[in-house]
Amino acid sequence: MMSVSFEEALLSILALAHEPDERNILLPDALSEVTSKDVVADRNIPPFNRSAMDGYAVRWTGNEEARAFGIIGTLNPGGTWSGDAGEADCIKIMTGARVPAAFDTVIPVEHAEETTDGKVLFLEKAIAGQHIAWEGEDAKQGDILVPRGTILRTRHIASLAAVGKWEVTVYSRPSISVLATGGELMEPWERASGAFIRNSNAHFLLSSLKKTGFTQVEYLGIAKDNREEITTKIRAGLSSDLLLITGGVSEGDIDIVPDCLRACGVEKAVHKIAVKPGKPIYAGRSENGGVVIALPGSPVAVMVHFQMVVLPFLRKTSGAADFLPRPVWLPLAADAKNKGERKKFALGKIETVGSSSRVVEIPSRGSGDFVSASRADGVIEIPMGARLLPAGTHVRFYPVF
Amino acid sequence: MMSVSFEEALLSILALAHEPDERNILLPDALSEVTSKDVVADRNIPPFNRSAMDGYAVRWTGNEEARAFGIIGTLNPGGTWSGDAGEADCIKIMTGARVPAAFDTVIPVEHAEETTDGKVLFLEKAIAGQHIAWEGEDAKQGDILVPRGTILRTRHIASLAAVGKWEVTVYSRPSISVLATGGELMEPWERASGAFIRNSNAHFLLSSLKKTGFTQVEYLGIAKDNREEITTKIRAGLSSDLLLITGGVSEGDIDIVPDCLRACGVEKAVHKIAVKPGKPIYAGRSENGGVVIALPGSPVAVMVHFQMVVLPFLRKTSGAADFLPRPVWLPLAADAKNKGERKKFALGKIETVGSSSRVVEIPSRGSGDFVSASRADGVIEIPMGARLLPAGTHVRFYPVF
Repeated sequence: MMSVSFEEALLSILALAHEPDERNILLPDALSEVTSKDVVADRNIPPFNRSAMDGYAVRWTGNEEARAFGIIGTLNPGGTWSGDAGEADCIKIMTGARVPAAFDTVIPVEHAEETTDGKVLFLEKAIAGQHIAWEGEDAKQGDILVPRGTILRTRHIASLAAVGKWEVTVYSRPSISVLATGGELMEPWERASGAFIRNSNAHFLLSSLKKTGFTQVEYLGIAKDNREEITTKIRAGLSSDLLLITGGVSEGDIDIVPDCLRACGVEKAVHKIAVKPGKPIYAGRSENGGVVIALPGSPVAVMVHFQMVVLPFLRKTSGAADFLPRPVWLPLAADAKNKGERKKFALGKIETVGSSSRVVEIPSRGSGDFVSASRADGVIEIPMGARLLPAGTHVRFYPVF
Repeated sequence: MMSVSFEEALLSILALAHEPDERNILLPDALSEVTSKDVVADRNIPPFNRSAMDGYAVRWTGNEEARAFGIIGTLNPGGTWSGDAGEADCIKIMTGARVPAAFDTVIPVEHAEETTDGKVLFLEKAIAGQHIAWEGEDAKQGDILVPRGTILRTRHIASLAAVGKWEVTVYSRPSISVLATGGELMEPWERASGAFIRNSNAHFLLSSLKKTGFTQVEYLGIAKDNREEITTKIRAGLSSDLLLITGGVSEGDIDIVPDCLRACGVEKAVHKIAVKPGKPIYAGRSENGGVVIALPGSPVAVMVHFQMVVLPFLRKTSGAADFLPRPVWLPLAADAKNKGERKKFALGKIETVGSSSRVVEIPSRGSGDFVSASRADGVIEIPMGARLLPAGTHVRFYPVF
């Protein structure tokens, strides 16, 4: 069976994403959610001429250090002061307070000395307009601060709070079911001996979904390698927006997951990709619109492709404008090889020597080796057909784990 | 007042961290927690000689392609097969199944052709031992897979599940109170006009704590700039392991937070740091052991120093072995300046042109400019005394927001 390129497969899988609905949430729940409307400035930012220092507000003449100034008022943040001021009048003003219309320059307290008779001397020349953050200089009322389709990070939470977005309109998120298949699997809370191993894939996926903000998640447990059990669990999972399966997707007699999916009315979109690990990845859509992504049972393939395939799909389905993982290009610490005719995603980490960061491939004994994977903090992309990449070659590194 | 170097201040603040207790949690709650015991392999990994392919298990002779083999059994993952096998006998075996003692090599199904009389022909030469993941080759029983003091990422969750760590012993986490001070502040759900602005710092901190896995968090609200209100809220916050304050820490008449802290019995450890932004940062410890970190009121200082100061402290207090933010060294896209005698943390992001990633400083109008900060995905460190760093110079970049 022909396999397609990784990019071609990814595009086919992304095409399965549906348009999300909207919902309203409160700001404390907004982290990792995706905005469905532009968030705009409700006022100019800053909303007034704001003192950027603790000091004295004056009307600039260029001769501030020539004489003593009278202190005709004091202004704290949130306070107001209105009145007229002569050329040698000033007010004490604190950082964050609105500079009254009568003044245009702030002289910091470090450059001033109050006299015993209640006046103040300025010790340095002032620059006209200094130490004031001017109304609207950061943004104008109506400017877009956080565009529609933004995955909200903590930095955006600050902006939303500042413009009074306590209620935030975001895209709804997909519901997800997770199913592990494999006759050799036991759960972490069960004893595993003989020919049995413990199911790590499902628990990796559950924690990865939690980390990336997906909360409508149902765990369907383990289906042993028999048609009836797998089919029953697939039917249960197809009511979710995404059914995520591990194991049972390659070519052996017992890789019956694609067969069972067909029997459940799922139409295949992708099966077999020219990528290592992850060749047997399957994706399709059921009659009711539910999407299925089935990953191989090997832990490294699951870890890599949650990041490279599943998360991009989930982010697109959540309305995110930037749904693809973003690589950093860094030099290789040592030669890298890719013998096969498949794109390779190698386990890697960033290592810094002196003032140079480079990526180091973590030796792995194959896609079953979760021990090596636990030392990786990302994935190195090694292009198809690149037999040898010499040390120093810049490669894409995805800091994802 | 003399200010100390950023590193000196950070070390003083880290020295305030206390030794955490331990507690037991379940694996689904383990993400972002810190292991307090080494997690070791409960069996060899793999725990048995495991077939890495769907195919046929044979005893290698080097002449596999010379004759037809009889299929004397079938073995699925989790199944067992025991018996003797002749030189031209094989069993069908699936990926993940335990290779019986009678065999030592697996020939993949792609290189085999079953005949109509129930035998199988192998089409290519086999290499002795191929396609078997051997017992113990990834790790030996008792090997440390996840050392004590590890902040658990999703990759570690896979390892914990695989070795049956359903119950995980982790360090206890500090309780945290968050207090915003400033007479100009209104909450995001309140109307803000005139000389008032909305409190973004506290909501940034609350979401940052949530993101990094700190859940015992109490929000004390806003204290206006008066001694009584601030002191009352400080007393409430000192019952937490960490009281995190924004605003009111610099030198002006109303920067009374340090005064109020002294009145509440807090002993100063750090005040004024040679860093920009963040010069007025204050840290201390109360008589009952509660730690206080007070950040300036400017949003950019809060965003930078949650990452550079607060989070390292919280991670150390949570028992993490690696508590410092880890930089990537990348070339500057353009010249960078640092006029002052302070270390500078500039807002930045990674930009990729062709196959080269470099860091771009985001123009900012100062530490009040949260609009620019919302476009940064990290912080560029520009050393003290570096008047000009030419484009191409490698600098530390912390991908933190």
